[in-house]
Amino acid sequence: MDLAPLRAIVGAEHVLAPVPRAYREDASASRGISGSGACVVRPVDAEQVAAVVAHCYERGIAIVPRGGGSGFSGGAVAAPDEVVLSLERLNRVRALEPERWRMHVEAGVTTATVQRLARENGCFYPPDPGAPEQSQIGGNLATNAGGPHTFKYGVTRSWVTGVEAVLAPGELVQLGGPLRKDAAGYDLRGLLIGSEGTLGVITAAWLRLVPAPESAAALLAAYPDTAAGTEALSAVLGSGVVPAVLEYLDGGAVRAAAGAFPGELAGDPGLVVIAEVDGSEAEVAAAAGEIAAALAPRALSVHEFRSAAELQALWRWRGGASLAVTAQRGGKLSEDICVPIERLGEAIEATLRIGARHDLEACSWGHAGDGNLHSTFLLDPGDAAQQERAKEAAHELFELALALGGTISGEHGIGLAKSGWLRRQWAPAAIAAHEAVKQALDPRGLFNPGKKQP
Amino acid sequence: MDLAPLRAIVGAEHVLAPVPRAYREDASASRGISGSGACVVRPVDAEQVAAVVAHCYERGIAIVPRGGGSGFSGGAVAAPDEVVLSLERLNRVRALEPERWRMHVEAGVTTATVQRLARENGCFYPPDPGAPEQSQIGGNLATNAGGPHTFKYGVTRSWVTGVEAVLAPGELVQLGGPLRKDAAGYDLRGLLIGSEGTLGVITAAWLRLVPAPESAAALLAAYPDTAAGTEALSAVLGSGVVPAVLEYLDGGAVRAAAGAFPGELAGDPGLVVIAEVDGSEAEVAAAAGEIAAALAPRALSVHEFRSAAELQALWRWRGGASLAVTAQRGGKLSEDICVPIERLGEAIEATLRIGARHDLEACSWGHAGDGNLHSTFLLDPGDAAQQERAKEAAHELFELALALGGTISGEHGIGLAKSGWLRRQWAPAAIAAHEAVKQALDPRGLFNPGKKQP
Repeated sequence: MDLAPLRAIVGAEHVLAPVPRAYREDASASRGISGSGACVVRPVDAEQVAAVVAHCYERGIAIVPRGGGSGFSGGAVAAPDEVVLSLERLNRVRALEPERWRMHVEAGVTTATVQRLARENGCFYPPDPGAPEQSQIGGNLATNAGGPHTFKYGVTRSWVTGVEAVLAPGELVQLGGPLRKDAAGYDLRGLLIGSEGTLGVITAAWLRLVPAPESAAALLAAYPDTAAGTEALSAVLGSGVVPAVLEYLDGGAVRAAAGAFPGELAGDPGLVVIAEVDGSEAEVAAAAGEIAAALAPRALSVHEFRSAAELQALWRWRGGASLAVTAQRGGKLSEDICVPIERLGEAIEATLRIGARHDLEACSWGHAGDGNLHSTFLLDPGDAAQQERAKEAAHELFELALALGGTISGEHGIGLAKSGWLRRQWAPAAIAAHEAVKQALDPRGLFNPGKKQP
Repeated sequence: MDLAPLRAIVGAEHVLAPVPRAYREDASASRGISGSGACVVRPVDAEQVAAVVAHCYERGIAIVPRGGGSGFSGGAVAAPDEVVLSLERLNRVRALEPERWRMHVEAGVTTATVQRLARENGCFYPPDPGAPEQSQIGGNLATNAGGPHTFKYGVTRSWVTGVEAVLAPGELVQLGGPLRKDAAGYDLRGLLIGSEGTLGVITAAWLRLVPAPESAAALLAAYPDTAAGTEALSAVLGSGVVPAVLEYLDGGAVRAAAGAFPGELAGDPGLVVIAEVDGSEAEVAAAAGEIAAALAPRALSVHEFRSAAELQALWRWRGGASLAVTAQRGGKLSEDICVPIERLGEAIEATLRIGARHDLEACSWGHAGDGNLHSTFLLDPGDAAQQERAKEAAHELFELALALGGTISGEHGIGLAKSGWLRRQWAPAAIAAHEAVKQALDPRGLFNPGKKQP
């Protein structure tokens, strides 16, 4: 590949070849996915992105847009002849307008920066996927990222009123903007969000904010088994309170993380439920009482987290569950299936059975209120046979999700990791529509090839 | 047109030819838009819809999907050789699951029925466009309908987790479902929502619900002029409270509706602001106090509406404002532009100036928090010259919206009424993407031709 034209666009020091290791992998490396790429190109602004895309599109060079590389599905890894288009230098906050409940940021701004700027200005940006220091808002949009607060507040798509993007063959466009409502054109904004870089390159976003809730409180309840825990979840849904967060960890996940628990977790719970409420002081007090009442009946114990320090300790523990599970055997394969809420208990139990069938220890945790599991098989990363069995177990997990009326991905997307599985989830006519849209917006198939393949 | 095959699909009594008057117009009749159509076809279920579409698509017959006919943009009126596909008989509630915060309804279920079923079961379906007894949920999806509660709760698209639709050339598909999260495929669900029947025919929807707020209260404050009123709006946004509803009426709208006001509205306000808060009793009491404090400084008067009866009276009055304005001269031309919130005052004032330039009395009201105006020119429906001037005034209004960084439509869509204007709002490359998507999903251009044309 002739790198001179790319160097002319972004400056020689921002074309990296060969591709440094940091740009060859994302968080899917642990499942054995890694890439290469012909070079990394690091434009400084949207105009340079457009110029890079125009250059590549004209010459039939494939483009792999890349954010913070924290994705779990291999959406940001490149094949040998592809250009890795890193958005990291598009890191300007173009407008911060807390008094109007919004901000306008470039794709390379980290999720943590967005959250912090909102918070420091009395506002709240609710989407909270993992790895906020690493992940970039452009990647959050590309995957339509979720997180615990999605339960009350909705996924990333709900918080984006406009996107700026480079479409084929290298045109910079704005779809939406700071407007809170727009019924004029097709929702191409929403279509680009979650398209994993396969329809264009998102260069900036207008984000919606809300005033920060004054207060929050969380309750954690431990149950003897899945049935008792999911019964409690139903009671929470029937309480009339809308929790901000409604999470669970199964017995295996709790055991793995037990040592770090901020408090005393008696016995050996089969399932743990965490509910957070937020709002005014008065509201939080009342809501926490109602949630506690809903959680209590079959609970082994109920723990309350009220102060900011207590809440931080709780969520640090919950956030560390994934690493604690990994630490059991040194590795894991984790999938993010999502099922209708009433099938959650079945999916939790079936995850264990699938693991057992493949001689793998299994556990799960996740966003209970959204029916979204992180079903996980523990493994020794050096054991190729275990790796292979885990892959088979994951396929059974996808079958399970589909059998329960669910989806193969609630959060991470298809990437390379779930290539081909959408065809099992959607009817042929829906797949045809999916492919027609791809063909319409990327006629040469140069945006992130091989990713999000039905 | 040979009606025999259509009669064979839906039954002879459900093919109406010639097209009865009730199916030739929608709420855009008042602006002179009316249609005709070759016949009305009234399938009873999604399979019949698919069969009708398959028949028409194969023969090159255009299809105009039709809900309750309450749209303001002419999206549901047909040309002489087109088939009006009425969804009114698809009126089944397929699943009502308040304990899981969701319901599954066919396209022909009225908005009022959805709202009532939610309410009667302790839940809340927030989108509240006008004419709920007439409008159908399928039409709400087709236009991505809004309403006052959109401010806190978001538009229709935010409340739909799945759609069932018939795509070209007559295939029934399901996109999403009861799942609260799904990161697998492109967001074709969201793309169909708001596409005004131009990409396919929506036959059913999975709707998300929330537990009904326990309580609500509203405050109405009157101001001497637009500047004082918009200053109060900013104060509300800065109060830290998230109102459920944040509306305004300008002086002209208030004068037109003054007679029916539930209470005493002293003086001749230049702008009236209405804020509703909802939540638990305690929360509502606290929030109403904070909103009242934000509204007070420059207010001529502040009125509180606390009991269910008071709230009902207030919203009946607000809901009647449009008719009260119409009653002034017998007719009106009303447009639904939307601007960034900080430009609302300018748009309100400019609406009056545009009216004056065209020798038309003007006023506006709308969803202040979303920057969404219903800018209105009063007219005598029998006066062709006034009609003509109103049309020119509307075009200036669109120019105004674009100049202020807004959109030509916040709620009603493009339909026939705003045909061609999207091209002024979007860049050529975005328009090309819009057209490519249309071409991809409706290659023969048979779904609602002429509507939502850029």
